Amino acid sequence: MAYNRVAILGTGLIGASVGLALKASRPQTQIIGYDAAGDSLRRAQGVKAIDRRGSLRDALENAELVIVSTPVGAMKALFEEISEVLPTQALVMDTGSTKAEVLRWAADVLPQGVRFVGGHPMAGKTETGPDAADARLFQGAVWCLAPLPTAQRDAIDEAVALVESLGASPYFLDPSEHDGLVASVSHLPYLMSVGLIRHLGNERSWRETASLAAGGFAYTTHLTDSDPQMFFDIMRTNRDNVVRRLDLYMNELLSLRELIASEGVELKAAFEQARSLHQDWLSGRAQGQATAEGENPLPTTRSMLTGSLFGNFGRRGEK
Amino acid sequence: MAYNRVAILGTGLIGASVGLALKASRPQTQIIGYDAAGDSLRRAQGVKAIDRRGSLRDALENAELVIVSTPVGAMKALFEEISEVLPTQALVMDTGSTKAEVLRWAADVLPQGVRFVGGHPMAGKTETGPDAADARLFQGAVWCLAPLPTAQRDAIDEAVALVESLGASPYFLDPSEHDGLVASVSHLPYLMSVGLIRHLGNERSWRETASLAAGGFAYTTHLTDSDPQMFFDIMRTNRDNVVRRLDLYMNELLSLRELIASEGVELKAAFEQARSLHQDWLSGRAQGQATAEGENPLPTTRSMLTGSLFGNFGRRGEK
Repeated sequence: MAYNRVAILGTGLIGASVGLALKASRPQTQIIGYDAAGDSLRRAQGVKAIDRRGSLRDALENAELVIVSTPVGAMKALFEEISEVLPTQALVMDTGSTKAEVLRWAADVLPQGVRFVGGHPMAGKTETGPDAADARLFQGAVWCLAPLPTAQRDAIDEAVALVESLGASPYFLDPSEHDGLVASVSHLPYLMSVGLIRHLGNERSWRETASLAAGGFAYTTHLTDSDPQMFFDIMRTNRDNVVRRLDLYMNELLSLRELIASEGVELKAAFEQARSLHQDWLSGRAQGQATAEGENPLPTTRSMLTGSLFGNFGRRGEK
Repeated sequence: MAYNRVAILGTGLIGASVGLALKASRPQTQIIGYDAAGDSLRRAQGVKAIDRRGSLRDALENAELVIVSTPVGAMKALFEEISEVLPTQALVMDTGSTKAEVLRWAADVLPQGVRFVGGHPMAGKTETGPDAADARLFQGAVWCLAPLPTAQRDAIDEAVALVESLGASPYFLDPSEHDGLVASVSHLPYLMSVGLIRHLGNERSWRETASLAAGGFAYTTHLTDSDPQMFFDIMRTNRDNVVRRLDLYMNELLSLRELIASEGVELKAAFEQARSLHQDWLSGRAQGQATAEGENPLPTTRSMLTGSLFGNFGRRGEK
């Protein structure tokens, strides 16, 4: 779909990347950006992710598409601010990391009949802000979609077409199912990394520990570079799923601990199973994608792993 | 030091990389390889990590330097096999992932007066075998050294010179201190990754989970690609340290769980501290390295992160 006017509310990494991807596919579209942080807004314009900066009211005027890409913690207040001035026919999408609360706010706060489709692109970097934005960030990524129950078919179709035009694969999920799954694949991995570096970094031997730490440590602590505010918001809007997931994970660590203490050969079998699960995931087999030798797997995993952030992970698959 | 004859016993990734690095710095040296797996030995010769293959006895004949780079689990038996035929004046070094047991075996099994210096290069890849070998694998890496208490000064000096000639920085550690530290920076991260993918991979929802998993998941599961046998040996020779480290780590996860459940702002502070600890580590500040803006930090961390395996991690530092 062609758009004359698009509003991007929140011009950090994701908002600015949407802007760049929109410009790449629709050079005629006029994109107005708004961000509570003037610096982020100016830098988004600097990298040409938006055509011009505006107030919230300016940005929304005649907008046919509204992208809400603030941290989740700011969304409810933003929905309240825009509800008076939102053009009736605009498609409104968010890109927040959790969906149940966001959908609840959208239902409670946005005007009746709003064309709202919640979303979450499964793409990102630990780098934050518009300077890290990339028009190709969504290429090959899964983009979760969770429409409001009242959303009309044409709004959903439009969201699908939009996401596909940015290079992503739409993936419909119930908001609470979404939140359970991202607790597993994103929120728990972040907490694992935070836990590792904090429990070591707060010991007296940290200097020696840090001196020996090498590649394996780099992998498992990398996510600690993520935006603390973003993850703080995530924990507050996905608390129950995260706590449950942490408990399940600690149960698994306890089983591994028992296998280690008992020195049984089951431990080696556990390690072999982990490698095999991981290789199935990397190749796309775990997701039920193409498996035939020499056949290209579907884009999902492959592209996520060979994108700008994860170039090295794809090497095995590239052979 | 120049060597006429070197024996490499165990021609996997590390042994073959030592061979390539030795050839690069000492083209005249004759390197004889031995490996219980004939295939690994042939491939090591194929990539020119060794000049020729031999029996254990062939390899050791007139050897001035003996590198033992089998998995730790095979070392005791190998020490027994070689003790009768080891040239008296040879420097013997191992590259095993744990050190206390290896040093105990060396003291118990190798001939009195052996010039043995235990070692562990803090470098590696998840890829295994001689085909993944790299002459530059040790460039900028820390190489832990743990001499037998009976080792003479000249043996230790020779080990230092050797390690430096391969591009690494020698780092002397008591074997039990070494094992405690690697439990933190290497063995725990591996178990964290195994625990993550196993607890998700054994759930009925794995297919959906796998479909949403993206970059963060890739980072935190990457280590599951490591050699299961190597880590099985590690767990058996470093059991107490690993179990203790797992317990400390689970305590940290429990504290994070409490902060999440209570929704306090301390959680955000914990996330901020984790990021700051990580950035200090990446920049070398945690290790006490150079900190002035624009000054090159010492090679240790930087080089490990910008090497062939970890190219992406170094981007922040490269700016």
